[in-house]
Amino acid sequence: MSRIVQKYGGTSVGDVERIKRVAERIKAVRADGNELLVVVSARAGVTNELLARARAVCPAPDERELDMLLSTGEQETIALTAMALHGLGVPAVSYTGAQAGIRTDRTHTKAKIQTIEARRLVADLKEGKVVIVAGFQGISEHGHITTLGRGGSDLSAVALAAAVKADKCEIYTDVDGVYTADPRVVKTARKLDEITYDEMLELASAGSKVMQSRSVEFAKKYNTVFEVRSSFNFNPGTIVKEETQSMEKVVVRGVAVDKDQAKLTVSGLADKPGSAARIFRTLANAGVIVDMIIQNVSRNGLANLSFTVPQSETTKADAILQPLLAELGAVCTIDDSIAKLSVVGVGMKTHSGVAATLFQSLADARINIQMISTSEIKISIVLSQDKADEAARVAHTAFGLDAR
Amino acid sequence: MSRIVQKYGGTSVGDVERIKRVAERIKAVRADGNELLVVVSARAGVTNELLARARAVCPAPDERELDMLLSTGEQETIALTAMALHGLGVPAVSYTGAQAGIRTDRTHTKAKIQTIEARRLVADLKEGKVVIVAGFQGISEHGHITTLGRGGSDLSAVALAAAVKADKCEIYTDVDGVYTADPRVVKTARKLDEITYDEMLELASAGSKVMQSRSVEFAKKYNTVFEVRSSFNFNPGTIVKEETQSMEKVVVRGVAVDKDQAKLTVSGLADKPGSAARIFRTLANAGVIVDMIIQNVSRNGLANLSFTVPQSETTKADAILQPLLAELGAVCTIDDSIAKLSVVGVGMKTHSGVAATLFQSLADARINIQMISTSEIKISIVLSQDKADEAARVAHTAFGLDAR
Repeated sequence: MSRIVQKYGGTSVGDVERIKRVAERIKAVRADGNELLVVVSARAGVTNELLARARAVCPAPDERELDMLLSTGEQETIALTAMALHGLGVPAVSYTGAQAGIRTDRTHTKAKIQTIEARRLVADLKEGKVVIVAGFQGISEHGHITTLGRGGSDLSAVALAAAVKADKCEIYTDVDGVYTADPRVVKTARKLDEITYDEMLELASAGSKVMQSRSVEFAKKYNTVFEVRSSFNFNPGTIVKEETQSMEKVVVRGVAVDKDQAKLTVSGLADKPGSAARIFRTLANAGVIVDMIIQNVSRNGLANLSFTVPQSETTKADAILQPLLAELGAVCTIDDSIAKLSVVGVGMKTHSGVAATLFQSLADARINIQMISTSEIKISIVLSQDKADEAARVAHTAFGLDAR
Repeated sequence: MSRIVQKYGGTSVGDVERIKRVAERIKAVRADGNELLVVVSARAGVTNELLARARAVCPAPDERELDMLLSTGEQETIALTAMALHGLGVPAVSYTGAQAGIRTDRTHTKAKIQTIEARRLVADLKEGKVVIVAGFQGISEHGHITTLGRGGSDLSAVALAAAVKADKCEIYTDVDGVYTADPRVVKTARKLDEITYDEMLELASAGSKVMQSRSVEFAKKYNTVFEVRSSFNFNPGTIVKEETQSMEKVVVRGVAVDKDQAKLTVSGLADKPGSAARIFRTLANAGVIVDMIIQNVSRNGLANLSFTVPQSETTKADAILQPLLAELGAVCTIDDSIAKLSVVGVGMKTHSGVAATLFQSLADARINIQMISTSEIKISIVLSQDKADEAARVAHTAFGLDAR
């Protein structure tokens, strides 16, 4: 007998028929003698409908009231899921985030989980009830309903798995698991059987959209092993866990492409201490997230500084920098036809030559590299956007990731 | 400055535009320097949509889960109403029934309010915030969400008005107030300026659908004066309150017709003690609500017993009685083409001749009376359904209720 936490996303519980199918899955897992705690999201589309109504009554809705509004989405699904289980003769009880004891801080619309008082949930599990908990939501110190922001239901599931000391945590989604690359781009991409927390985090930051970093970080912190798998079939998914020695044998776990970045180049910058600091302080104060940064000094003592920002923030970043650049006597050029390609793997820590292999493979394919940035388990390069897909296929092959 | 509780029903907050109009009304009342606590229902139609989804996943949904599901309806409206007020620059905060401290018993789908812990609400009111509370819902001792059943939002409003010691309680609905008769039937019907709790209760039980008895009983118990009025105009409504001497001068306050009753007649019943008791015990055990009862003894020592039940329960009542009637040697006939007409007024207590006036007016119109039942402030008769509307008009005129 295992204690299992399962999380079903919005498409998995998108309508009445899908909720009934989820209930069938739950029934089967429970029939094998397992204890089950199930986290569900709002039905796909409901959150957007509610947001549209909110904006129709008030252009900039108050965040406390937004949380009050949005939390109804999951509350509907937990009740329907519990009912569907009752319809199959399975004892089940639903709890809102507040009732499940999910205490958060007061940051409405992106609250952080602080503690989970799981006694009531564990008691129900021991009695053989399937416990259904509303994902994405909690309650703050003074009893206000909070929501956890994007990917919040995954976070609820991972945190609840830690709180009830679950043996397994399964994140059901509309993909089969984590792939070595985006299968729509790299036809030879393979589903991974396992991946480390750190690799998953680097892939997420590299543009792979399977899961938000926050949930993976939480799982890593509490060493909660979880599996990403599909609710539309019974295939095993990808297990995300702490690295083991055998996992380090694989040099590169996957390749990710992010086409949502733009490159800003500041040229003619006097190469003296503090110029770069002032530029990035200005961007940070305006809330612009900067990803890769490289700087080169040219012969005449003037530096070229390039960095990437999300494409949606390009105009804002440029505008915000203008007064400072005028003062510094520098100019800024924008290139939004770039992409970022990253190769990720814990094996890099103990293997040399990874960068060389990557650069050689791209050179052989006559793909030019504009920027390079490395971390302990990741190499990212910036290249022309129209070469990104080809580069992903080339790298995928070069690191032996292709399906045989 | 007054402390005012307002309640807006499902049609008043039926869509985004109507919610904005409600917010405008609230803003105007607050601008006059009043403290405002507002109770809202779910948008019209939402409860039925949720029920349909519930029945689609499970034919007989669990009542705890039904409450979990249905309570999302008001939660959506309170958030949207608060946002709409923010959009108008009015400070406002929304609370679910649980957050508002509405404690109920554990009878899911028709819970009774036990206490209201209103300190937080009063503190907000004193700070000048408009407090928006979800009607129809509360929380039971162990933190389960409960709902109050039909007319529950009216009950929430009346109970909150008592709890926060409101100066006024206004129940906004889609009618202008309480009328002397149904204006669709009696063209000369007038809106009443005031009516006593008892008259309102008798009218409700007589088939007038303005408000559920429960809310009126609650208001009577706590002597909470309230006004029933329309949210679609600014006309004064009908004030419901304890009777005063001047109110007793009116003999008949209103005329109500209930066409939703059927008459069962048990004949050939041996007139011995206990037979009637057994019949009504059998019906009560099956949950059949019996309204009027009359019994006559005929010459041969056999009794005829007639009573009325809601039309929807006629078949059930008949089936349930068959074994007992066989034992008693009696037979049952059903007449579902009847109606009940009631005249109601606290003035009856001190005026004689009311029954005589009613019977004479009907006799003059050649309308036959099948059953008669009287209480301290009401006379009800059963008559043929096709004569009911005409009888209402005749009685309305006979008691001087016609608009001049």
